[in-house]
Amino acid sequence: MDNRISFSSDYTKGAHPRILERLGQINLEQNDGYGTDEYCKSAAEKIKAACGCPEADVFFLVGGTQTNQTILDMLLKPYEGVIAAATGHVAAHEAGAIEFSGHKVLTISSDTDCDGKDIAVYSDEIGKIKASDIKAYIQGFYNDDNHEHMVFPGAVYISHPTEYGTLYTKAELSAISQVCREFDIPLFIDGARLGYGLMSNRTDVTLKDIAKYSDVFYIGGTKVGALFGEAVVFPKGVPTKHPVPIIKQHGALLAKGWLLGLQFDTLFTDELYFEISKNAIEKAELLRKALVEKGYKLYIDSPTNQQFIIMEDDKLKSLAEHVRYGFWEKPDDSHTVIRLATDWATTDDDIRELMRYI
Amino acid sequence: MDNRISFSSDYTKGAHPRILERLGQINLEQNDGYGTDEYCKSAAEKIKAACGCPEADVFFLVGGTQTNQTILDMLLKPYEGVIAAATGHVAAHEAGAIEFSGHKVLTISSDTDCDGKDIAVYSDEIGKIKASDIKAYIQGFYNDDNHEHMVFPGAVYISHPTEYGTLYTKAELSAISQVCREFDIPLFIDGARLGYGLMSNRTDVTLKDIAKYSDVFYIGGTKVGALFGEAVVFPKGVPTKHPVPIIKQHGALLAKGWLLGLQFDTLFTDELYFEISKNAIEKAELLRKALVEKGYKLYIDSPTNQQFIIMEDDKLKSLAEHVRYGFWEKPDDSHTVIRLATDWATTDDDIRELMRYI
Amino acid sequence: MDNRISFSSDYTKGAHPRILERLGQINLEQNDGYGTDEYCKSAAEKIKAACGCPEADVFFLVGGTQTNQTILDMLLKPYEGVIAAATGHVAAHEAGAIEFSGHKVLTISSDTDCDGKDIAVYSDEIGKIKASDIKAYIQGFYNDDNHEHMVFPGAVYISHPTEYGTLYTKAELSAISQVCREFDIPLFIDGARLGYGLMSNRTDVTLKDIAKYSDVFYIGGTKVGALFGEAVVFPKGVPTKHPVPIIKQHGALLAKGWLLGLQFDTLFTDELYFEISKNAIEKAELLRKALVEKGYKLYIDSPTNQQFIIMEDDKLKSLAEHVRYGFWEKPDDSHTVIRLATDWATTDDDIRELMRYI
Amino acid sequence: MDNRISFSSDYTKGAHPRILERLGQINLEQNDGYGTDEYCKSAAEKIKAACGCPEADVFFLVGGTQTNQTILDMLLKPYEGVIAAATGHVAAHEAGAIEFSGHKVLTISSDTDCDGKDIAVYSDEIGKIKASDIKAYIQGFYNDDNHEHMVFPGAVYISHPTEYGTLYTKAELSAISQVCREFDIPLFIDGARLGYGLMSNRTDVTLKDIAKYSDVFYIGGTKVGALFGEAVVFPKGVPTKHPVPIIKQHGALLAKGWLLGLQFDTLFTDELYFEISKNAIEKAELLRKALVEKGYKLYIDSPTNQQFIIMEDDKLKSLAEHVRYGFWEKPDDSHTVIRLATDWATTDDDIRELMRYI
Repeated sequence: MDNRISFSSDYTKGAHPRILERLGQINLEQNDGYGTDEYCKSAAEKIKAACGCPEADVFFLVGGTQTNQTILDMLLKPYEGVIAAATGHVAAHEAGAIEFSGHKVLTISSDTDCDGKDIAVYSDEIGKIKASDIKAYIQGFYNDDNHEHMVFPGAVYISHPTEYGTLYTKAELSAISQVCREFDIPLFIDGARLGYGLMSNRTDVTLKDIAKYSDVFYIGGTKVGALFGEAVVFPKGVPTKHPVPIIKQHGALLAKGWLLGLQFDTLFTDELYFEISKNAIEKAELLRKALVEKGYKLYIDSPTNQQFIIMEDDKLKSLAEHVRYGFWEKPDDSHTVIRLATDWATTDDDIRELMRYI
Repeated sequence: MDNRISFSSDYTKGAHPRILERLGQINLEQNDGYGTDEYCKSAAEKIKAACGCPEADVFFLVGGTQTNQTILDMLLKPYEGVIAAATGHVAAHEAGAIEFSGHKVLTISSDTDCDGKDIAVYSDEIGKIKASDIKAYIQGFYNDDNHEHMVFPGAVYISHPTEYGTLYTKAELSAISQVCREFDIPLFIDGARLGYGLMSNRTDVTLKDIAKYSDVFYIGGTKVGALFGEAVVFPKGVPTKHPVPIIKQHGALLAKGWLLGLQFDTLFTDELYFEISKNAIEKAELLRKALVEKGYKLYIDSPTNQQFIIMEDDKLKSLAEHVRYGFWEKPDDSHTVIRLATDWATTDDDIRELMRYI
Repeated sequence: MDNRISFSSDYTKGAHPRILERLGQINLEQNDGYGTDEYCKSAAEKIKAACGCPEADVFFLVGGTQTNQTILDMLLKPYEGVIAAATGHVAAHEAGAIEFSGHKVLTISSDTDCDGKDIAVYSDEIGKIKASDIKAYIQGFYNDDNHEHMVFPGAVYISHPTEYGTLYTKAELSAISQVCREFDIPLFIDGARLGYGLMSNRTDVTLKDIAKYSDVFYIGGTKVGALFGEAVVFPKGVPTKHPVPIIKQHGALLAKGWLLGLQFDTLFTDELYFEISKNAIEKAELLRKALVEKGYKLYIDSPTNQQFIIMEDDKLKSLAEHVRYGFWEKPDDSHTVIRLATDWATTDDDIRELMRYI
Repeated sequence: MDNRISFSSDYTKGAHPRILERLGQINLEQNDGYGTDEYCKSAAEKIKAACGCPEADVFFLVGGTQTNQTILDMLLKPYEGVIAAATGHVAAHEAGAIEFSGHKVLTISSDTDCDGKDIAVYSDEIGKIKASDIKAYIQGFYNDDNHEHMVFPGAVYISHPTEYGTLYTKAELSAISQVCREFDIPLFIDGARLGYGLMSNRTDVTLKDIAKYSDVFYIGGTKVGALFGEAVVFPKGVPTKHPVPIIKQHGALLAKGWLLGLQFDTLFTDELYFEISKNAIEKAELLRKALVEKGYKLYIDSPTNQQFIIMEDDKLKSLAEHVRYGFWEKPDDSHTVIRLATDWATTDDDIRELMRYI
C-alpha cells in the first residue's frame, strides 16, 4: 500500500459520505433497471431546476470518455466531425473513442502565450478555443470549393474547466454559442470538473449560463464527490427520438441505473455539489498562495482545483518520497511541470502536510 | 414508490452488505486510477486461484453489454463475426452493440422441443447451441466456394447459464471447446449469471472447468452480489498487446477502477460469491416446488435462479397487484409466460410472501 | 486461358459494343470529375424519364456491395438495422459490409417449399419475403417490452430479381410498400439484375412500378451490359442533405464519374437496356426448354436469366470439361445444383453449344 | 458542353488509346471475376518484375480514397492510427473515410518556408514530413505516461509526389523507412501520381526504391493513363491472411476485376507507364519555363506535373474565359493561387494554346 499523500488527481477517493450513507439505506430496496427508477427521476428534476431548464432531458452515464463518445454520436451525422481544441480530452486522451465511433475530431489550436523556447509559462487562456477561431474554421470550410470531400463541422466541443484548469468567461461562452447558432451547429460543454469551474473565485459563469449557452453539457460526478457518474443535460431536449438504444449500443446503459440517480439526487440536495466543489477551490487557493510564497513558479495561473508548478528535478525527487503528484510535462532537461489537484475532500491538514515537503 | 415485492429480475437490489461495508472503510483512501490499484491486483489473484489458472489475465469492466462488445473486439479480426445462439444476448438484446463495433453475429438456432402450435413447453436445452451444429456451421462455411465473400467465423459465444436459465453439461462444454480448438477459434463464455450456474443442483461444471474449456469468460457481478461489475478472465492470457486502449476506446475504462477490484476482492474472499449464489438456487428450488405443488405449468424446467411459468392472464392480473414479475412472452391469447428470478439476497420470507399471492 | 464456354455468371464479359464505341469517341474529351459532368446529367434525365419520376435524385456508383453499403448508410440511423431475406445479398454475401458500417441485418426466412429431406425442389417463391412477414416482424418488435434494447427496423431490403432469379409480382411489391409506408420505413430494392426481371415473360412489374413502390432502388449495369456501374434512384429525393461526403467516405466516389454517366446514357438511349435484357431472357427460355426436353430436373422454375438444375455428379464431371457453370449447392452426396446464367450477349449458338455437352 | 481547354487536374481524360484498343479486343471474352483472371495475374507479374520484388502481393483497386481506406484497415489494429502530413490526402480530403473505418489520422505539420504574412511562396518541402519529426512523434508518444489513453501510431503515410507536387529524395525515403523499421511500424506510400514522381527531372528515386523503402504502396492509374485503377503492392507480402473479405467489406472488390488487370498489364508492357508519365513532365517543364519567362511567380517550384502560380485576380478572370484551372487558395484579397496540371496526354499544342491566354 502506497501511504504517501496524493495530489495526483481529483479522482483518487470514493464518494461524499452522504452518498455512501444513502446507498446503505436503500441497498435492499428493489428498483427498476436502466435508469427508469425513482431516484433518476428525482435527480433529473433537481438538476433541471438548478439549471433553470424545465424542458431539459437528463441522462446519467458512468464516465467521461463514455459520455463524450455517446453524446457526440447523438449529435453528429455520419459525415460530420466535432470541432475541439487540440488539447481537448476528445482529441487527445480518449484512445480514439470518437474515431472508433466513426467521427473525426477537427482540432483548433488552443491559445497560448508560450514562447516555446524558454521554460514555458502558459497564459490563463491555455486549453480554450475562441469564438473567432471557430467561426473562421467553419467559414473556411464552407468557402473551400472542395468541402464536400472534407469532414463537415457538426458540433463544437469545449471543456469547462478545460483540461488545464482554465475557464471561459460568460462573454466568451456567449460568443461561442452565438457562432454555433449562426451555423446551426450544437455546442457541447464537457463538464467533467464543472463544479470546480462554477465555484471558482474568478468566474462569472453560473450553471444556468452553461445551460443557456450550450445544447448539451454534463455535470461531472466522478471528479466531484460521486463514486462515478456524469449527468448529461440537453437543455432543449435530446435531438434523437431513441436515445436509449444509442446508449445501450455504446455499452453505456448501467443496469442498476438508480446508483447514478441516487448519487446525483444526493449531490443536488441542499446544494451539496456546490458546497463540496467550493471546498476544492478554497484548498487550491491555500495551496497556490503557499506555493507563491515559497517562490515556486506557476506554470498556469489556474483559477480552479488543478495547480501546475514548475519544479527542479532534484527537488521533485525528494518530494516524490512523500507526495504523489501528477506528471504533466518536461519543459527542459532539468525541470518538470507537475499537477497538484485538490478535491471535494481535501482538508487544511492535507495542504499543510503537502507544504511541509515542498 | 412501488412497494410490491419484486421477482422481476436478479438486478433489482444493491450489493452484498460486506461490499458496502468495505466501500465505507476505504472511502477516503487514495487509490491509483484505471484498474492499476491494489484491490484490482488482489481480486485478480484470488480469481486466478479460484479458476486454477495462474497464467490468466483478469480485467474488470462495468456491465454485460459493454463486456461482450469489448471482448469480441479483442477477439475478432475486422472480417470475422461471432457464432452465437439466435437467442444469445449478443444476438438479440444489445441494441446492435456488436454490429456497432463492425462485427456480424452469426446465429445458430438454439435447440428447442417446442412444437410451435400448442402452449409451448420448452425443453432444458433451450438457449443452448450444440458442438455438432457449431462444427457443421464452420465446415459449411469453409466448404462454400464463395466463403471469401462471407463473414468468417472468428469466435464462438455461449452463455452459461443461458438467457433461459439452462446449463451446459461438462461434456457439452468439452465438445464445444474441442470444435473451437480444432478450428483455432476462441470460445467465449458469457457468465453474467455464472454463480447461479455453478451452484445449481443440476450441474457437473465447476469454475475450473469454465476456465479450462474457454479462451475467455466473465464472472458476473452485477447480477450476483455486486453493485456492478464483470470480472473478465483470459485463462491463457489476453490476445492483444494493448488491451487498455481497446477498453478505453469503448468508453469502458472506469476511472475509479478500485471500486470494481474491491467488490470482486470481497466476493472472492471466503467463497462469498459461491455462498450467495447458492442462496439464489435454494430459494429458486423452494419456489419451483411450491409452484409445481400448486399445479403451475413450468415453461422451462430451469436448474438455475430464473423460473418460468405459464399463467392464465386473469390470474396474472391479480398477481400483478402484489408482485412485480418479468414478462417473457405470450404463447397464446389467454396465457402469458412470466419469469420469476431469485437472487443472492432472496429470503424464505420473500418466497412465502410470493406464494401467498400466486 | 480457359477456353470453355461459360455460363457461370452474368458478369463474365465486358460491355455492349455501343458503350465501348462511345468511350472511344470521347476518350480525349476533358470532363469534370466526381459525377458533375454532362454525361451523368444526361443519363440521370433519361433514367428519370424512364422511371416516370421527375423529382428523383440519381447517383452512379461502381458495384453492388458498395451500393448496398452506401445506400443503407444513407437510410439508417445508427440504432437501426435493415430487414432482409436470410438469403439476401446484404445478409449473406457481402463479407459483412453492412456490419462494417455499423448496422445489423435483421433476417426473415425467405419462403420455400423445400421439404429438406429429399433432393430439394424449390418453389418460385424462394429468395422472396412476404409483406405479412415484414409486418409481423415490425409489429413484434414494437410489441416487445424490451425493444429499446434491440435493433430497430429502419429499412426493408428486397432484391428483384432475387438472388435465386425469382420475381415479386406487382401485388406483392405493392403490399410490401404499403407495410413500409404504414411504419414510415423506406423500401430499398436491389436491382443488380433489374433488367432481367423487367423483361421476364412472367412479370407484371414495370420500371415505373419499381419507382412507385420503392423509396430507393438501383438499376444494375455490371450484370446488364455495362463494364461496371449501378444507377441509384431515389424517386422522391435523397434523404440526406449531403450525399456526396457519404459516398466519398465509403470510398465510392469515382474520380472519372463520366465513365458511369456515359454508360448509363448509352443504355438508356433507344431502350438499349431493355432490348439487351430481353436477349438474356429469350436465351434463358431456349435453355430451359431444351433442359426440360432432355429430362433435366429444374431446381427452381426461374422466370429470369438464371437457370438452376440438379445434375448427377458423374454427368457434371464430364460437362465440366467443356462448360464453366456456377456451383450452387449439394443437395445430397451424388447430386449437385448448378447455375447456368445467360446474359445480354448470349447467342443462340452459345445455347446450342451448351446443349451439345449437357 | 464546356469547350475551354482544361488544365484543372490530371484526371479529366479517359485512358491511353492502347488500353481502349485492348478492352475492345477482349470485350466478349469470358473472364473469371473478382481479380482471379489471367490479366490480373499477368499484370501482377509485370509489376513485381518492375519493382524488383518477386515476393510481393499485388491487388488492383478502383480509386485512391478507397485504396487508402482499405490498405490502412489492413495495416492498423483497432487502437492504432496513421501518422500523416496535415496536408496529406487521408487527413484532409477523404470526407473522413479513415475515421469512418475507426482510425484516427495523427497529423504532423508538413514543412513550409511560408512566412504567413506576405503572399506566400512555399518551398520545395511543402507537403512532406521529415524522418526526424516522425521519430520525435513516436518517441514522444511512448514517453508519455498516459499513452495507453492515446491513439497508438500504427503506420506512417506519405504521398510521393505529395499533394503539392513535391518529391522526397532517396535519402529522405531511406531515413523515414529506417524510423519505421526501428519502431516496427509499416510505411505506406500513396502513389496516386507515382509515375509523375518517378519521371521527374529532379528525382533520384526509382520504382525499386519505392518498393525497397515501403511496406506497401500503390501505383496510380486513374491519374496516369488508365480509365481508373490503383495497383497496390505489398513488397514483402500482405500482412493479413484474408485480404479479399477486407476488400469486399469496403465495397472495393470490382466484379469484373480483369478491367483493372488489363489496364495495368497494358501500362506495364513496353514501359508505357513510364513513357506517358514522362510526357506529362516534359509538358510541365515547357509550361514552367514559359510562365517564368512571362514573369509569373511560382507558388511552389514543383518538379512534377502540377504547377502552381500566383495570379492577380483581374488577370485570372480573363484567363477563365478560355482555360479551366484548379483553384488552390487565396493568399490575399487580390491574388489567387491556381494549379495547372499536365498529364499523360498533354500536347505541345495544348501548352501553346494555354500560353496564348496567360
